[in-house]
This record gives sequence, C-alpha cells and structure tokens, in this order.
Amino acid sequence: MKKVVVIGGGTGNFVVLSGLRNYNVDLSVIVSMADDGGSTGILRDELGVLPPGDVRQCLVALSDSSRLMRSLMNYRFENGGLGGHNFGNLLLSALEKVTGSFEKAVEEAGRILSIKGKVIPVTTHQVRLRMILHNGKMLEGEGAIYTSQELDKGFRSIYLEPFPEVNKRAIDEIMNADVVVLGPGGLYTSLIPNLLVDGISKALRDTKAKKVYIANLMNRKGQTTGFTVSRHLKELQRFTGADVFDFLLVNDGKPASALLKKYEEEAGMVENDLRGDSRVVTANLLEAQKAEYAKADSLSHFRAFIRHDPHKLAQELMKIVSAL
Amino acid sequence: MKKVVVIGGGTGNFVVLSGLRNYNVDLSVIVSMADDGGSTGILRDELGVLPPGDVRQCLVALSDSSRLMRSLMNYRFENGGLGGHNFGNLLLSALEKVTGSFEKAVEEAGRILSIKGKVIPVTTHQVRLRMILHNGKMLEGEGAIYTSQELDKGFRSIYLEPFPEVNKRAIDEIMNADVVVLGPGGLYTSLIPNLLVDGISKALRDTKAKKVYIANLMNRKGQTTGFTVSRHLKELQRFTGADVFDFLLVNDGKPASALLKKYEEEAGMVENDLRGDSRVVTANLLEAQKAEYAKADSLSHFRAFIRHDPHKLAQELMKIVSAL
Repeated sequence: MKKVVVIGGGTGNFVVLSGLRNYNVDLSVIVSMADDGGSTGILRDELGVLPPGDVRQCLVALSDSSRLMRSLMNYRFENGGLGGHNFGNLLLSALEKVTGSFEKAVEEAGRILSIKGKVIPVTTHQVRLRMILHNGKMLEGEGAIYTSQELDKGFRSIYLEPFPEVNKRAIDEIMNADVVVLGPGGLYTSLIPNLLVDGISKALRDTKAKKVYIANLMNRKGQTTGFTVSRHLKELQRFTGADVFDFLLVNDGKPASALLKKYEEEAGMVENDLRGDSRVVTANLLEAQKAEYAKADSLSHFRAFIRHDPHKLAQELMKIVSAL
Repeated sequence: MKKVVVIGGGTGNFVVLSGLRNYNVDLSVIVSMADDGGSTGILRDELGVLPPGDVRQCLVALSDSSRLMRSLMNYRFENGGLGGHNFGNLLLSALEKVTGSFEKAVEEAGRILSIKGKVIPVTTHQVRLRMILHNGKMLEGEGAIYTSQELDKGFRSIYLEPFPEVNKRAIDEIMNADVVVLGPGGLYTSLIPNLLVDGISKALRDTKAKKVYIANLMNRKGQTTGFTVSRHLKELQRFTGADVFDFLLVNDGKPASALLKKYEEEAGMVENDLRGDSRVVTANLLEAQKAEYAKADSLSHFRAFIRHDPHKLAQELMKIVSAL
C-alpha cells in the first residue's frame, strides 16, 4: 500500500483527506499548530491547551463513524459561555487535560471517531505565529495574520515563537512517504507555519517521496493579491530552501460567472503562469455546481463557493500515486 | 435474566448501578429531570437543553468503556467560559442539539460509552422543581431546595412546573420489572421528583415487581434532621399513595468515630426505628475505610466519607433478586 502524507492545516486539508480516504492508501496528515483564532484561540488562552481546531477537521475528514458523530464534532454551541466552541474542540481539549498529552488526545479522539489514517501535530510545543511587516509592525498570531490586509506590502519575517522542536513522528512520516502533498491552504497561515518548524523543510528536500503541490484556486485580498502559481512557489521556496516539488496540480476549470461575481471583492483566481513547466498537471478540479438545484432553490447561490472537489483532487493525486 | 429497575437521580444511583453492573441482570435506571444546579443549571438556562448531569452519572456507572473515557465524561473544565462544566454534560447537550432529542442523545452517548443497560429520563419535558414552605416562601428549583436549611420547618407543597407528561418507557420498565429499587438519594431532590411525574406512583402500586427501598445513611441538616427510616418512608408514602415497599435495605454498620466527627456539623445518621418490621434487611453497607492507608497518608481523612459500598449494596440486592 502506498504511503501518502498530506501537510497543511485548515480546510484545505479537509478537502484533500475527504477525497483520499476513499482510496486504498496509507494516509497521514501533518497539521500546523499555529492556529489561534476563534474557539481554538479561546481554548489556548483559557485552558493552556494546544490548538484543536485544525486537528478536529482532519479527524472528521478521516472518520469512518456515523454522520451523526461527524456532525457532533463540528457542532458549534451558540449561546453563553460555550458560545462559538465546536464540540470537537472541547473533546480534544478535555482529552488533553485528562491524558496530559495532546498527542494522546488526538490518538484517543481518532479511536472514538474510528479514523482511517494518522493525524500528527507538526510540533507539540505551544507556539504562536508572528509576522513582522516592512513598516516594523508586528502581527501577533495566525488570527491577526489571516485578517491582515497589509501582507501585500511585503514582510520582513515570519516565525514561530518560541522556536519549537519538531515532532519526530512528522519527520518519519515524510521520510517514509511515497507521496507528500502540500496544499491547498492559506500560504502564510496554513502551509508556511509547517515549514517554519525545524526539520520539516530538510525532510522535504531529503525524502525520496514525490512531492506534489496543489495550487490554491483563489487569492486572498491583502494577502496574496495577484499571486500566480509561480509566485506561490517562490514564496514556499524561501522556506523549503529548494524547489522541491515534482508535480504541480493546477486547476484549469472555469467557475460560472455568477459565482466569480460573488468573489468580486476578493483578489481573483490564481493564474497558472507555468504552462511550459513539465511538472504541471492541469485538470478541472472545481466542485461542480448543481445547475438544476440552483434553479430550484433560490438560496443555493448563497451556499455556492469556488472550491476544490475532493473527488476530482483525489483522482488526480491517485494517478500520480499509481504511476509510482 | 431478571429485570432490575433503579429509580433516582444524583450520586445515589451511581453507587447502586456501579455495584449491580457486575451481575448478570437486565438493568435500567429511571432518572429525575429536575436537576438545575451547577453545570447542568447553566446548560439548561443558556442552551435550553434537558438536564444532563444525573444522566451522565448513570451512563458512567454503566459504561464498559475504558477508564480514560469514564474520566473524560467526569472531567470538569476549570477556567473561562467553560469553567465548571463537566465534559459529559457538554456531550449530552451537544448531542441533544444535533439529534434534536434528549432521548436520542442519551441513546447515542450510551453507544459511545458502551453502556450495559438503559438510561431513561422520567420525562422529556422541561420541568422545574418548586417547593412552597409553610411560611409561604417559594423555593425555585432543585438547587434552591438542596441548599435550603428551612425544610425542617415543613412545607406546604412540592411540585414540578409545568406538570409534565411521563416518559412511557419509564412506565413500561416499572411494569415489566422483577425488582424496582428506590434510593439512596436526596429525599426531596432526587427521589420525590420522580414520584411527582404522573403515572410513576401508580406504576409502583400496580407492578408485580418487588419494590426495595434503600435507606440513606446520613440525614441532611435543615432537610431531614432527625429523620428515622420510618419517617423517610412516611414522606415517600405521601407521594406513592401507599406503602409500596417489599424490602427495606438498612445499614447497620458503624462508621469510625473519627469519620463521624467529620459529620458533626451535619444532621446525624438515619436511625433504624423499624427493627420489628419483617421487611427490613440489615447489613453492614458502609464503604470500608482503609485503615493502613489512612495511617500512611495524612490527607486520606479528608477524602473519607460515610457512604454506601457499591459491592455490599449489590450483594444484598442480588440476594433479593436471586430469591425470586
């Protein structure tokens, strides 16, 4: 069975894992520990736990348990002192308190949710993401960076504080992988925070695994405005230390114009400026919009997003895996 | 397999169920829905859910899952907006929100915890316990009644508001039981709240099951000061409408004097004034105090309580069950 390791954090991981879990592969995911927004941020501040949010999403993506259990994990309390907390975040935090270890908590939650595969925190140290802009302003935390509209002006440095030790299991996974997948996901908030952990970039350079980069569909305003695929790669290379990728998986589907209109305020699609590069694999990776459904349901356009289709993504990834 | 139905609420149930679960009986527990203190009260107020606390204790008592899972259910968050909430209460409340039904939530939680037996809310209506004292003062809620020091002065009435419909499953359980166990537990806060639900008392009178009352060990100051076993029964009879019990299980063990001293401020032990009554079964039902342990550990006397031993209780109950 081929070993596939996904690196990321956030909803990008969720999509890749949701697709890949339907195939017969040995799957694991290395998750950034820099999240500090929303429910996760409150739990970190109030309970001193490690960030549960991204891990929860991965666990749900890999879960073989009932639809009810998966809904329960994502259930968000609405009122009072619990307001805004996802139940799954509380499960992970309570398990961390009871077991005394975030990794044991993840393992136990994986058992409760009957997950297929492994979920591995990139570090088990308490870290915060920091970014210093060219104007000297410091953005403290992933949440602040995620909502900043100033990243386009460039930045002086991005780092984790304190400088954490890598989780050795994450290195082992990368070194023993057949395929390593990076992306899609927030460039500065989900992907690079993994590369900032000592040893991850070296492992990506050293491993014999094929490395696949999945390009984002859309740019984020104030963060990656106007970034092409090559610009994303150039940013990543500052942290990987080399151009490590063997495959670049890039969408060539066109979203419906009505859908693009919804994103007008945003920073546009990520342009593929690497058509001559033999590493590029293009395919229509867009989630299909159900046209009939849209007609029948006037609310459906509010729910429509430009996003990757888990099954199309997994199909393209499996072509790479099967060719090895 | 003999069918044993336990009626109550609170920690009394926990002790009885923890003992009985080790025997080969068809076990179910009918739980009062009047709890509104602590974490449970906050969840009722903020989320509009049914009270999870007593149900959680029963689920843990009946759980066949790992020690870790049982610790998790009882884990109490310490800080922030979550402070004071037991994880198990949050599980039940989130499941109620996701499934839209408290009974489905209890069923699903039972599956997660691999419970042996059934946990049945006495009603699935939102009720609050009310007590009107002789001086006209109204105590609103189980929490207020539990902490009142005025009950000794007598009361005019105790009732549930609004007057709830009984859970038909609770009636079925009582009617089909071989043995029904009431107590131990708070007279006005755990036992009587079940009898206030329409149909429960009639079922206790009508069922062919043997009814066992387990007398409390200690009285509660301001609540049952000086109450003997017969006085407890007299109080219960006001609600059952008849003297329904076939067996009265009463402790005759003597706690160590050092332990009794700890309870000096309290209202003393429940005196057995029914020695001539053929229904009385006496036995030493006290949890053993580990004398050697007490010597070795100067803190141990803080942890010592006068309470029922689950295994001794279950042994006596099983003598009754086996003789049928």
